[in-house]
Amino acid sequence: MEKRLVKVGLMGFGTVGTGVYRIIRAHQEDLRKQTGLNIEIHRIFVKDIHKERGISTPTGMLTNNIDDILYDHDIDVIVEVMGGIEPTKSYILTALKEKKHVITANKDLMALHGAQILSTAQANGCDVFYEASVAGGIPILRALVEGLSSDRIYKMMGIVNGTTNYMLSKMSKEGMDYQEVLAEAQALGYAESDPTADVEGHDAARKMAILSTLGFRVAMNLDEVDVRGISSVTKEDIAYGKSLGYELKLLGIAERSNNKIEVSVQPTMVHKSHPLASVHDVFNAVYIYGDAVGETMFYGPGAGELPTATSVVSDLVTVVKNMKLGTNGLGVVAPYIEKLLKSDEEKYSKYFLRMIVEDQRGVLAKVTQVFSDHNISFKQIVQQPYNGGQAEIILVTHTSTKADMDQVMKKMESIDMIHHVKSCYRLEGGAK
Amino acid sequence: MEKRLVKVGLMGFGTVGTGVYRIIRAHQEDLRKQTGLNIEIHRIFVKDIHKERGISTPTGMLTNNIDDILYDHDIDVIVEVMGGIEPTKSYILTALKEKKHVITANKDLMALHGAQILSTAQANGCDVFYEASVAGGIPILRALVEGLSSDRIYKMMGIVNGTTNYMLSKMSKEGMDYQEVLAEAQALGYAESDPTADVEGHDAARKMAILSTLGFRVAMNLDEVDVRGISSVTKEDIAYGKSLGYELKLLGIAERSNNKIEVSVQPTMVHKSHPLASVHDVFNAVYIYGDAVGETMFYGPGAGELPTATSVVSDLVTVVKNMKLGTNGLGVVAPYIEKLLKSDEEKYSKYFLRMIVEDQRGVLAKVTQVFSDHNISFKQIVQQPYNGGQAEIILVTHTSTKADMDQVMKKMESIDMIHHVKSCYRLEGGAK
Repeated sequence: MEKRLVKVGLMGFGTVGTGVYRIIRAHQEDLRKQTGLNIEIHRIFVKDIHKERGISTPTGMLTNNIDDILYDHDIDVIVEVMGGIEPTKSYILTALKEKKHVITANKDLMALHGAQILSTAQANGCDVFYEASVAGGIPILRALVEGLSSDRIYKMMGIVNGTTNYMLSKMSKEGMDYQEVLAEAQALGYAESDPTADVEGHDAARKMAILSTLGFRVAMNLDEVDVRGISSVTKEDIAYGKSLGYELKLLGIAERSNNKIEVSVQPTMVHKSHPLASVHDVFNAVYIYGDAVGETMFYGPGAGELPTATSVVSDLVTVVKNMKLGTNGLGVVAPYIEKLLKSDEEKYSKYFLRMIVEDQRGVLAKVTQVFSDHNISFKQIVQQPYNGGQAEIILVTHTSTKADMDQVMKKMESIDMIHHVKSCYRLEGGAK
Repeated sequence: MEKRLVKVGLMGFGTVGTGVYRIIRAHQEDLRKQTGLNIEIHRIFVKDIHKERGISTPTGMLTNNIDDILYDHDIDVIVEVMGGIEPTKSYILTALKEKKHVITANKDLMALHGAQILSTAQANGCDVFYEASVAGGIPILRALVEGLSSDRIYKMMGIVNGTTNYMLSKMSKEGMDYQEVLAEAQALGYAESDPTADVEGHDAARKMAILSTLGFRVAMNLDEVDVRGISSVTKEDIAYGKSLGYELKLLGIAERSNNKIEVSVQPTMVHKSHPLASVHDVFNAVYIYGDAVGETMFYGPGAGELPTATSVVSDLVTVVKNMKLGTNGLGVVAPYIEKLLKSDEEKYSKYFLRMIVEDQRGVLAKVTQVFSDHNISFKQIVQQPYNGGQAEIILVTHTSTKADMDQVMKKMESIDMIHHVKSCYRLEGGAK
């Protein structure tokens, strides 16, 4: 007899979990028309079944015993929105071994243990989908796996953290400084009381690890992503960048050339003619460069109960369709390309620098000589007076290697006339 | 014995066709890894097999006899990139009846005869995919069918014609007038020698019919799309719009409220804070509003050999995967929601108007009274001197119905003091 009802076990019942619950309840009819099956939440795992959540559930649906979900043979699909690494990872691996398909919104887990989870899924013929783990409401993983499947992607740039984009947008629009905007973001609930994961770029790094694993078909490890956050960004940097035509954004950048890869997260000056420069507030966007497609961008909400929950339910629709078609597990994309990481000599980019120097004859010549010694030339140079007999120099370079730029930075520390390199940012967009 | 090779019949060998041929040849290995099968172009239908195309093909691959493709039992999939309505439609229907899957980039055909083609496909258990028919390199149809499948979309706005977006961008950036920029676009090959389909909005209308059919799950007919092109747009309109914070864009707008639908294509003033206002030149973008996801945008190349060919090959990968999984034909989305169109009393929007009036006391009061009689109020009003004792009035309204605005326009014709309503545009974006 053909299956008519798909039972879902929900792990976690916070904002995303209640969103998933609400969507499934509100869209019963649509979901049935799309999949030919009824979908219902059968059991929900929570720590505390008595906590007030502002949503009513049938008696007995909530459980604080995970085995009620993992070993219930009626449950076909697990939706994991509880977060964290352990015990979540063990639960997911057990569920897969119990032949349950898994949908997760857990970027931390997928960035760190994605390979193990995917291989366990493959071994058990199960689906694992995790669209909501990157850029909440934007179907970017699906686009990488399917939509651009015949293309060869060579670069991905993403604004993949809403908190820091909100903060940088505020600093840019209102001239606020970092501490001020952080306090405001915390007051509004956009930033956590411990904002480290967001502001130091770790959250974005996880998403870039997931994106580059899928986009480049290599097993990218989180610790291979170069990370620098926004906590040392000043409103002066942003204002100077703006005056030269750039918006400062926390960009994840994944690049491949000559079959070698580099993945980083760092505050980056983005030329205002580039669409990423217009992505403001808590919105996310991923800009993709492919051999064939050229340039394409996916834009949308990066977080939020309903956008993230929508991604989860879309994944659920795919799993249910696969169940009906008997194709579960076949769509799991295992990385198959050997991973070669670029050395610093192979990492090319343009840079934006701001430094304070002694305001005396020959200082600019001295500074530019250091760059010239490392084959770095300039697109723009601005020199202007600074406090007490000093001068401020802003430089926009042409393309250089990271190795050369590191050498230059080191050399400048040893020159007395250069008092302080206030900032050095990677630069993207604008004319070649 | 399991099938190891998928043979493709290509109909048409122009820019897109040669692009598809090149991608399949260059990405053999990747395609095999993704699908587990080898994919090869088996036969190519062209009118003239002796024409020089700058690409070499094996002897005997080209044919000018369509039956060599339609009735060749070795061919599993047809890729149609020859364009036109007939005989293309008959070829496609025959191919489907011969149990061949069909991929087409033909927006004209899908906008006019999509329902018939989809139902024939369903009846024969065949796939029909047409991602390339809308916004060439952007996987927007896939996103509507799958990525946002659990959401309820209530509005889609698209810049879906690259030619007109290039022209309006040029007019905006360089203050060129319509005829001048049209001539340049024709010289560059961005516009055809007969530009009617682009500049009068017909091309965009076809894409909006396809988008709304998919997004709203109704069978939208092309003649139900309200169409107005850009041929009467002046550089003055664009400049005045800009001064008030708007970019003029040819927008396709599909809206659903209270289960009723309206779909239109028209030059629209888009507030510069809206991401669509930053979509310039030949780029396309589709901005989607869903109940759950909120707002999301897909941006990319709207045309071009490789982007369009990439979409075609991505569709081909999906078909080949389905072949391997035995799921062909199951993904065809037939519209299932009853179509109710809005009356003009149910179509709400804001408007931007520019008119020339007699420069005498009471004229503004007279003008505003007409609007007020129809319950239309204003967000912005600018009055300034114009040639020879006349005045120019620019009005930005709050939300009104189309019926009311039509009444206002009619009324104004009958008022002597109002010499000429130079322009009236729909307006999108900005504060509510």
